[in-house]
Amino acid sequence: MTYSDNQIAQEMYKWVADLFPIPRSLTGVGTRKTLAYISSKLGMDLNIRAIESGKKVFDWSVPDEWTIRDAWIESERGDRVVDFKANNLHVVGYSEPVDLWLELDDLQEHLYSLPEQPDAIPYVTSYYKRGWGFCLSHNQRKQLVYGRYRAVVDADLQPGILNYGEVISPGASDQEVFISTYVCHPSMANNELSGPVVTTAIARWLQLLPERRYTYRIVFVPETIGSLVYLSRNLDHLKTHVIAGFNVSCIGDDRCYSYLPSRAGDTLSDRAARHALHHIDPDYIRYTWLDRGSDERQYCAPGVDLPVATIMRSKYGEYPEYHTSLDDLSLVTPSGLEGGYRALKSAIEAIEINCRPKVLVLGEPQLGKRGLYPTISQKGSSDEVRAMMDLLTYADGERDLIEIANLIGVPINRLGKIVRRLIDHELIQIEES
Amino acid sequence: MTYSDNQIAQEMYKWVADLFPIPRSLTGVGTRKTLAYISSKLGMDLNIRAIESGKKVFDWSVPDEWTIRDAWIESERGDRVVDFKANNLHVVGYSEPVDLWLELDDLQEHLYSLPEQPDAIPYVTSYYKRGWGFCLSHNQRKQLVYGRYRAVVDADLQPGILNYGEVISPGASDQEVFISTYVCHPSMANNELSGPVVTTAIARWLQLLPERRYTYRIVFVPETIGSLVYLSRNLDHLKTHVIAGFNVSCIGDDRCYSYLPSRAGDTLSDRAARHALHHIDPDYIRYTWLDRGSDERQYCAPGVDLPVATIMRSKYGEYPEYHTSLDDLSLVTPSGLEGGYRALKSAIEAIEINCRPKVLVLGEPQLGKRGLYPTISQKGSSDEVRAMMDLLTYADGERDLIEIANLIGVPINRLGKIVRRLIDHELIQIEES
Amino acid sequence: MTYSDNQIAQEMYKWVADLFPIPRSLTGVGTRKTLAYISSKLGMDLNIRAIESGKKVFDWSVPDEWTIRDAWIESERGDRVVDFKANNLHVVGYSEPVDLWLELDDLQEHLYSLPEQPDAIPYVTSYYKRGWGFCLSHNQRKQLVYGRYRAVVDADLQPGILNYGEVISPGASDQEVFISTYVCHPSMANNELSGPVVTTAIARWLQLLPERRYTYRIVFVPETIGSLVYLSRNLDHLKTHVIAGFNVSCIGDDRCYSYLPSRAGDTLSDRAARHALHHIDPDYIRYTWLDRGSDERQYCAPGVDLPVATIMRSKYGEYPEYHTSLDDLSLVTPSGLEGGYRALKSAIEAIEINCRPKVLVLGEPQLGKRGLYPTISQKGSSDEVRAMMDLLTYADGERDLIEIANLIGVPINRLGKIVRRLIDHELIQIEES
Repeated sequence: MTYSDNQIAQEMYKWVADLFPIPRSLTGVGTRKTLAYISSKLGMDLNIRAIESGKKVFDWSVPDEWTIRDAWIESERGDRVVDFKANNLHVVGYSEPVDLWLELDDLQEHLYSLPEQPDAIPYVTSYYKRGWGFCLSHNQRKQLVYGRYRAVVDADLQPGILNYGEVISPGASDQEVFISTYVCHPSMANNELSGPVVTTAIARWLQLLPERRYTYRIVFVPETIGSLVYLSRNLDHLKTHVIAGFNVSCIGDDRCYSYLPSRAGDTLSDRAARHALHHIDPDYIRYTWLDRGSDERQYCAPGVDLPVATIMRSKYGEYPEYHTSLDDLSLVTPSGLEGGYRALKSAIEAIEINCRPKVLVLGEPQLGKRGLYPTISQKGSSDEVRAMMDLLTYADGERDLIEIANLIGVPINRLGKIVRRLIDHELIQIEES
Repeated sequence: MTYSDNQIAQEMYKWVADLFPIPRSLTGVGTRKTLAYISSKLGMDLNIRAIESGKKVFDWSVPDEWTIRDAWIESERGDRVVDFKANNLHVVGYSEPVDLWLELDDLQEHLYSLPEQPDAIPYVTSYYKRGWGFCLSHNQRKQLVYGRYRAVVDADLQPGILNYGEVISPGASDQEVFISTYVCHPSMANNELSGPVVTTAIARWLQLLPERRYTYRIVFVPETIGSLVYLSRNLDHLKTHVIAGFNVSCIGDDRCYSYLPSRAGDTLSDRAARHALHHIDPDYIRYTWLDRGSDERQYCAPGVDLPVATIMRSKYGEYPEYHTSLDDLSLVTPSGLEGGYRALKSAIEAIEINCRPKVLVLGEPQLGKRGLYPTISQKGSSDEVRAMMDLLTYADGERDLIEIANLIGVPINRLGKIVRRLIDHELIQIEES
Repeated sequence: MTYSDNQIAQEMYKWVADLFPIPRSLTGVGTRKTLAYISSKLGMDLNIRAIESGKKVFDWSVPDEWTIRDAWIESERGDRVVDFKANNLHVVGYSEPVDLWLELDDLQEHLYSLPEQPDAIPYVTSYYKRGWGFCLSHNQRKQLVYGRYRAVVDADLQPGILNYGEVISPGASDQEVFISTYVCHPSMANNELSGPVVTTAIARWLQLLPERRYTYRIVFVPETIGSLVYLSRNLDHLKTHVIAGFNVSCIGDDRCYSYLPSRAGDTLSDRAARHALHHIDPDYIRYTWLDRGSDERQYCAPGVDLPVATIMRSKYGEYPEYHTSLDDLSLVTPSGLEGGYRALKSAIEAIEINCRPKVLVLGEPQLGKRGLYPTISQKGSSDEVRAMMDLLTYADGERDLIEIANLIGVPINRLGKIVRRLIDHELIQIEES
């Protein structure tokens, strides 16, 4: 079974909509529900892993598990002026349970709003310092009148587990392409649901491929602590097997394409990402390592040094709706998700196709006698023949196909077809890497 | 005996005019006549080599020999409406012998013209697929009226030989500079006669030099198959001896200077060519390896990898008259040929002069006591002293003179004179390469 | 005891004023007086070295010692029309003693003036060719009427000694930073007094530092012959110990900042100088090695190859007052000297601070639990935390702090403080170089 890109776009958008209301966090029921939903769409089982609170992970410890059931602020008249049920961004992530009456002045110290985006509810967390708080739009906040308010956070925050999902699609080689996305943000669409949703579609596409050259290791982790957990459990394996990788984040709106390099900057993933994006939108935004902000911070840290690059649409921290309630189902679109999906797929295809071809004859091959060349020589020759000749002249067994494609200025998948044809005619061979 | 550049320009133009009417092709009488004419102008014997039809040459075979005596299209009224004697471009190169009457509609399948250049007769060949055809201007073609026509190609196409010419001017070193040009195009002046004619003048100049540092190997070959034949017979020698080389083509018009790199891009030939052209015309056109189209495709092919760069005036494929009857004696000019000759000579001189000088004293030498420096120090000092000081400061035994000349911004022949003066004063020595 | 930059600026300006009238030259009383004055300001003894006239120094010989007492041109009416006492630039440096009457026409051959700067007395020397001469403004010269003139140079030019000063401030390491300036120009302020004066202030600052990582070797030498003498006596030591160095010249006016690279171009000194200047004035002028003109010519000569870069204000040869009487106490200013002092100090500090940090944990450290990070995560985070995170991500034990500071775009001294904090928290260690 295969899907058209347009079908996939519609499906992905539905997945975003289904997942949107679930209150995800680093730990807890919402994240488990999200992983279960993803598993149901993958076409294969997602392995759900767990690690206990308090476990040491490099410089960090796994936090307690947070179970949020409800939360609200009630006025003396009994109105719920802020209500978790209306929007799960209203409660500060990892708020302690609380139920008490306060004067407005005291309540203010527990409120977060954005004066410059008065309609937006901000997204705030306090994972590593105990406390509680509510987020609300600045307009809403300004309507709070003097008086007493009851603040209720109906939650547990105590030792438990942190979960993440992992799925592996084996390929011909045990060399791996590593794909990571995160599942810890509540109701926001570009950051984060576009990430796990596009990753799910990519995982399903990979699984349905008739053959895979590389093994694909795909993980859905809570950001930062989750990627650290994953690294701490798999570091040696990852360092010896991963030849390329992508962190998938903010890949669902329709405004632009963006690229953030690995720390090393010129790994296979970086080269594939830049090649793919160049042929999708030559004006894509090139960020630098200084602009990093997601799990590439862990994957590319000194001593870890995995080749993880990032392909995005509008990058986290760079669009006005980021980390607010405005990052919703109107910001992410089917065509935005489709573009992100195709860009990531293109980069992965570039990695699958890439090789080091070496021409097997000295001097230019005579294409004519093989039916590969027009036999009448006249002004002009077709683009296809030109690409074939250009590929042959660069097929010195040193340059790889991504480099050759960049030199020639054509997308690598066009060259992939020519490579197969030239192998069939015994004009080139592929060098071992 | 020496010649002024202007004398040489006039001579070269006469050679083009003499060679213009000869019907050259990959093989046959016309090419042999051309080689004999070149031999008579070289001031030394050109060695004419032969290889038999059918011989395998890497991926290719030597084609049959083509002897063209005459060819025409005759109307029912007996008029020769197309006549090889009027212009030898009228017959498709390597046309089989034919003598038959056809209706105009059937004849059309054997005619070639250029609707967008209606006055030009195109140049068309069919070396590796049997057939026959005529080329004519589009205006001429439009005048053909319905009716029957007799098409006659009075030619032989059968096993024979392919010829090329080779001449070697020995130098102090057995390291070689390799110069190649081609002799297989009929009546066209920039592509190709400027090439063999400038090469002939360069060969004569080299032969008359009182001393040559390098050995010069100069060949006149049919394009593609001829260079492949030459490579197949001399590859090991060339790979061990050739330190620089040039393919000489399209070097006789007056419109611009052009450079096409070797595949490697930064060989001694490339550096010498760019240095020479920069000081002749800093606005010379820099093509890339993607723009290749002549025998550099063979000389620089993967596994061959000779350091062959190309200096041109208007590059093949880039000027409107290319591969048509408009590439004639009005397009190529004495000053165009002279410019091309000087550019190629300059690049060769750069290679002859090039060396790695090493200063023999620590700190700056005291030029004053050697009469190399003004003894009164006042504001400003001459360009000559400045160039000498700059050369000395870069004479670290690592940089070569081309690099130093580029750093300083002066032509290398100015530095060559200073190098000799500094050697005489025992201030520098030349490092072995 | 420490000094504010402003105090130092005022002091340096006074030193320039004190030293201005002294008639310095390659040798002689004026240079010794200058060295003695400098010694009195250093806060430690300047070691005054001597070498005898005639000694061979690489390609040079130490010249005779020149003692100038007085010099003038007197008209027949007894007026002193040119008088050394009015300005010591009036006598050509190294003029032989003379006392004779000449006609104006004959006198003219011994006169130097600048028609295009008619008010300026030029600075002219004749170190290595015997002769005598006077310099005067062009306006003054035009007023000379026909008649006889008495020219008197009351001087000695005979075997003696050449002096220079040397001072060493030991540091924790025996690796050295080498600072050189010159003391051989008479009454000119930017070239040269700004050089020795800023160097004196820098030497005193270094000496007062509670600790120095590197050993500082500071020399005050006559230009060219003095640096050659110093090299000839210390070459092996310098080549094995000096890791960075600066030639200090033209560093006292207020118009711009300038940088001239070492011959190698990317030594530690070059990187420190460019880093420092970039954060003082990003529009500083970047000269090339072709613009060299002072003792870097000796220190960076092939075979010497010390890492000596130059930080200047208005570069020698590039400002109109250069080598004339217009280069006076109005051109050099307290703020000009202060700027030069700070730029050189900044570059030295960059060298002292520079190191290769290596992070000690895998993945990003958890700054929060160490009180290094805000515990509530909300949009935006402080510049300080950002710099700390950026430093940590680049702290791979390969990049040095100058490179990291350039990548991050902050001055290295800001990073130096963070490095110390991170070492205290055992988050990084410093790699051996």
